[in-house]
Amino acid sequence: MSDTQPVSRAESPERAALYGRLDKADSAPLWAVMSQLVTPEPRPRCVPHKWNYAAMRKLLLEAGDLITAKEAERRVLVLENPGIRGISQITQSLYAGLQLILPGEIAPSHRHAASALRLIIEGHGGYTAVSGERIPMAPGDFILTPSWTFHDHGNLGDDPVVWLDGLDVPIVNLFDASFAEAYPSGETQRVERIPGEALARYGTNMLPIEYVPEGASSPVFHYPYSRVKEALGQIENAGSPDECHGYKLQYVNPATGGYPMPTMGAFVQQMPSGFNGRPYRSTDSTVYCVREGQGVSSINGELIEWGAGDVFVTPSWCVTSHKASEHAVLFSFSDRPAQKALGLWREQRIND
Amino acid sequence: MSDTQPVSRAESPERAALYGRLDKADSAPLWAVMSQLVTPEPRPRCVPHKWNYAAMRKLLLEAGDLITAKEAERRVLVLENPGIRGISQITQSLYAGLQLILPGEIAPSHRHAASALRLIIEGHGGYTAVSGERIPMAPGDFILTPSWTFHDHGNLGDDPVVWLDGLDVPIVNLFDASFAEAYPSGETQRVERIPGEALARYGTNMLPIEYVPEGASSPVFHYPYSRVKEALGQIENAGSPDECHGYKLQYVNPATGGYPMPTMGAFVQQMPSGFNGRPYRSTDSTVYCVREGQGVSSINGELIEWGAGDVFVTPSWCVTSHKASEHAVLFSFSDRPAQKALGLWREQRIND
Amino acid sequence: MSDTQPVSRAESPERAALYGRLDKADSAPLWAVMSQLVTPEPRPRCVPHKWNYAAMRKLLLEAGDLITAKEAERRVLVLENPGIRGISQITQSLYAGLQLILPGEIAPSHRHAASALRLIIEGHGGYTAVSGERIPMAPGDFILTPSWTFHDHGNLGDDPVVWLDGLDVPIVNLFDASFAEAYPSGETQRVERIPGEALARYGTNMLPIEYVPEGASSPVFHYPYSRVKEALGQIENAGSPDECHGYKLQYVNPATGGYPMPTMGAFVQQMPSGFNGRPYRSTDSTVYCVREGQGVSSINGELIEWGAGDVFVTPSWCVTSHKASEHAVLFSFSDRPAQKALGLWREQRIND
Amino acid sequence: MSDTQPVSRAESPERAALYGRLDKADSAPLWAVMSQLVTPEPRPRCVPHKWNYAAMRKLLLEAGDLITAKEAERRVLVLENPGIRGISQITQSLYAGLQLILPGEIAPSHRHAASALRLIIEGHGGYTAVSGERIPMAPGDFILTPSWTFHDHGNLGDDPVVWLDGLDVPIVNLFDASFAEAYPSGETQRVERIPGEALARYGTNMLPIEYVPEGASSPVFHYPYSRVKEALGQIENAGSPDECHGYKLQYVNPATGGYPMPTMGAFVQQMPSGFNGRPYRSTDSTVYCVREGQGVSSINGELIEWGAGDVFVTPSWCVTSHKASEHAVLFSFSDRPAQKALGLWREQRIND
Repeated sequence: MSDTQPVSRAESPERAALYGRLDKADSAPLWAVMSQLVTPEPRPRCVPHKWNYAAMRKLLLEAGDLITAKEAERRVLVLENPGIRGISQITQSLYAGLQLILPGEIAPSHRHAASALRLIIEGHGGYTAVSGERIPMAPGDFILTPSWTFHDHGNLGDDPVVWLDGLDVPIVNLFDASFAEAYPSGETQRVERIPGEALARYGTNMLPIEYVPEGASSPVFHYPYSRVKEALGQIENAGSPDECHGYKLQYVNPATGGYPMPTMGAFVQQMPSGFNGRPYRSTDSTVYCVREGQGVSSINGELIEWGAGDVFVTPSWCVTSHKASEHAVLFSFSDRPAQKALGLWREQRIND
Repeated sequence: MSDTQPVSRAESPERAALYGRLDKADSAPLWAVMSQLVTPEPRPRCVPHKWNYAAMRKLLLEAGDLITAKEAERRVLVLENPGIRGISQITQSLYAGLQLILPGEIAPSHRHAASALRLIIEGHGGYTAVSGERIPMAPGDFILTPSWTFHDHGNLGDDPVVWLDGLDVPIVNLFDASFAEAYPSGETQRVERIPGEALARYGTNMLPIEYVPEGASSPVFHYPYSRVKEALGQIENAGSPDECHGYKLQYVNPATGGYPMPTMGAFVQQMPSGFNGRPYRSTDSTVYCVREGQGVSSINGELIEWGAGDVFVTPSWCVTSHKASEHAVLFSFSDRPAQKALGLWREQRIND
Repeated sequence: MSDTQPVSRAESPERAALYGRLDKADSAPLWAVMSQLVTPEPRPRCVPHKWNYAAMRKLLLEAGDLITAKEAERRVLVLENPGIRGISQITQSLYAGLQLILPGEIAPSHRHAASALRLIIEGHGGYTAVSGERIPMAPGDFILTPSWTFHDHGNLGDDPVVWLDGLDVPIVNLFDASFAEAYPSGETQRVERIPGEALARYGTNMLPIEYVPEGASSPVFHYPYSRVKEALGQIENAGSPDECHGYKLQYVNPATGGYPMPTMGAFVQQMPSGFNGRPYRSTDSTVYCVREGQGVSSINGELIEWGAGDVFVTPSWCVTSHKASEHAVLFSFSDRPAQKALGLWREQRIND
Repeated sequence: MSDTQPVSRAESPERAALYGRLDKADSAPLWAVMSQLVTPEPRPRCVPHKWNYAAMRKLLLEAGDLITAKEAERRVLVLENPGIRGISQITQSLYAGLQLILPGEIAPSHRHAASALRLIIEGHGGYTAVSGERIPMAPGDFILTPSWTFHDHGNLGDDPVVWLDGLDVPIVNLFDASFAEAYPSGETQRVERIPGEALARYGTNMLPIEYVPEGASSPVFHYPYSRVKEALGQIENAGSPDECHGYKLQYVNPATGGYPMPTMGAFVQQMPSGFNGRPYRSTDSTVYCVREGQGVSSINGELIEWGAGDVFVTPSWCVTSHKASEHAVLFSFSDRPAQKALGLWREQRIND
């Protein structure tokens, strides 16, 4: 199929009659719809957009007054892309939300086929428990809850804790492969490991002897920002930045060298003050969360100014470039691993 | 997120006001929609359904009188699942259609990011040209056109040729990764290889020395039914059938041992006369095309009688069992490779 | 370490005294031996050599008069490379031998960690039983007995059957990883599968549904020459030969696309009459067995004339070119899979 | 082939005559040698042995007085297994040596097909330069020089620096695949990266975006002991030790999750004071270097007492158990990756 002109819309009466019979037979003429089905280039319905952190934070705290984390199971504001409102999606394939947990609150344990990632935006004393280990949350930390692993959250500190959630729910639902269940005993899972245990076992360029990965997801659930910062600093000292991306790394599953989860990849990039990136595009619509600094990004010519905590999105195949007015760090995630696994991913540096 | 009860719908005025502010901020309260987003089990909107071949063939021939293959670019009747009419899909993730090409007709060359597979239902003298090789079509043959390979069709014989098309268009579009183009020179691609060349090079348990696969799709585009039949016959002689599936094989990419294409898998199963299969379900909604024989399948209790040429579909996680009233061969395809690559696929034998 | 000059042999008395103390301490001075240990290029001790089939066949038949297959367990003449006599090797890493089995004879079942391959040279009615399936031997057939699979041989025909054995025994022994045992019941293993079953299940570009390979070796044990010939014929019709190799294919494991066994690869090449190949070398010393035709090969300048049934060897990194005075087919095998798995393999086309 | 009795040695005159003719034809009767070639279990010629560090250190310093590092290119005492003296091997497949570099010395750059690993035993101020990066050596650090990477060593400190070298030279030579060359300009390679750069880029559970590994060896050349100690401490706090191994980890290539190099694996194990390990054996002969503590190991019943710096070896398939009389850390390396890649590796826990 392709993007050639469909058959003239001035259909004859005979054809109209045939189309009626086709309709009754649960079928349809391809030639009337082909150009809509198979386009010459991506035509995303989702649009470039930014959610201002200060404004969203205010709404989150209001929600905190009106509804408990337990009542809601999760107190999350879904970020809905303006181009596709009403379906709880930030891109055509991903869900994102801002989650708030107040001091003393806990959110009950559950698990689901959908994979989740978190970027901690503010607050200390929060934790996510995954597979029996309580992972302490610090701002900038990247945390996983892989498919079908029990997880719960809590806040043992004195301040509100806020993070960005990313989930592959739309992908799971495209394939009609959703499963979910609450933790048997009800409340929260038992703590069976010490903090940092998974990182020590799997995240220090060593693995348990004769270790065999159980699945495609990373056995390391916690990527502390302190280590990321240190590495980015050394790399910036070592050489010059990529023209498009600055100093950009991808989080990996140390047991395979692949992505942390099969459906979502996560990235972090550091841009020196004054960095003026060259335009680039790829087919994986990408969700950015500003970790540090400020700047402006051009997405298909639309300018989006951003600062710490802001979330913005660049849709598939939109030409994107980043400028940093001060030293900046951007976290981002997308469905790149899924697109690559399915042979669909493309990227392009403009004016190559 | 999980399937627990959402917050009481009796929302307070304060909450209603908050929801209004959230809506203005391109956001929404997760707790109000969570149970719809993340279900405890798959809840496919597509339904079990059969398309009777005799009836569809009649409509195809009518279409043959009213519209040329060239005018339509492809003369195809899209099979639309009754549960999700109007979006050109047979399952939540796949497209299927019946294509007719009349003696002397040709369909022009094009290529697209979407992968396609064909099962030839009737007629001799047809061919599909892929990557410069004309593949002769015989009833029962399984033929690939992998992502981004130029392909065209023609009919050099005296009879109508009809086949079942399967494409991953909904998957490509979920990821907003559609690309397509017509063959530069216009009409049809040049023939640069002899018939059977790819099968000789890659399909005889040998490969060219130091061969390195270029992509994930099979370098063999043609799986002749004559070989399949012979193999199924030997296997049936060799041992007893699987309780659920009879004698069932999957087509493979001989350069990797994996699926022929990264998004779609294809299968063939032979059931002796009187076979009464045990119930089974999996998360990959499956499209069946009856190659030989007749029987009846039970899909979540709904009985579907089938005979040669009929196409029927079993949605995700629906309990399915097959009975063969005479020696039968079923061809089928699904999105299983995609679900496995993304860590989503599950199967279950009932009463295990 | 490297190939630089070792320290002057005019060692001082002090050094001589130190060397004595080192010797007592089960140690040695590296600087005195380094240039022998680590050479700038391969320095194979094995040499180019040919075994004339007529001559070897005569000796085999004499052995047939003097010793029964059962008495010998295997009636095999080991081909010993003249450069490394006395250690039962044809190259630095491989064993090869010519095996004879006379009408009515059987050789008992056993298994070992060493992997074996066979090329049938002459005779009909022979078989190798592997994993419960009796594989009929025809001239030119390539047959595997993977590591630790029970196997036995027999001759149900009226003529002597002769084949070339290739084993990785020197590799297994380098790693001190040899295991072996006779078939429990004594004589020969039970026949549990029908002839051709494995080829039907695994060798027709299909695999049993949800098949998971048990090991790295091919589930197909039999590569009939009839199919190989047909494929080579089509490929020769389809295009021009490789300058060095003619029309050359490698046997593959259809469940992985990799080599049939992890330690040994096997190859077949067809050269049209008058083919005059360009010089080539690689680090995998290679054993050739002439299937059809005749010609001459130049190995580091040494000319080796060959005809049907002859076996010849080209050592590591020796510049080799083949001329075919009549249409010829060469079978060959080497340790290439092992060298590639260990990151050691190199090849070079001369005058590139 | 197998371990059954060879043919009676009381050979007839006819057979003796045949054997003579076979010998002239560069061949030999398999039945006379089969039981030596293919053994029922490994029969390693190398033996259990320990090299006392104090004694070897004394010899190393004597060598330091008598020969310069540059004169020797490398000042190394080869550890020769008493069972196979004279061939510069510590096991049937590996080379090991103790290398000394004195303050102010440098060893020139070279590269070779052989892969090397180092364990630093004593001294500060030493470095190994690999691929343009100078890696500072600290006691306990594990350092790689993968196949065909230029490397040199130097000592910028005030004390002698000593480390254990492990190389796969016997494997490379088995396959006749040795290549080596000195650094073009002569002396030492240019320094092009900052210290710690490779570790920052590849060793922090992140990789450069769209990174594709160039080979099978780790892009991380340095595994600092400080990190290893910290991880071992956390793991010991987290749970109980393995019955055979204590708390044992394997060093990995973070870009693949596999072994650091394709031919050699390296391991570190911590045993609490009083640990009394259960017997175990595997086919990979293993070289141990005691990092901390003391204890005794039983190898096929032979007791070997060890302390810090000592090197000892356990041959293939020898039943081995470790006792720690004080809190101990053992570093070890073997050819396990090669054996696994070739399908040869086996292990056994005794009294399982």
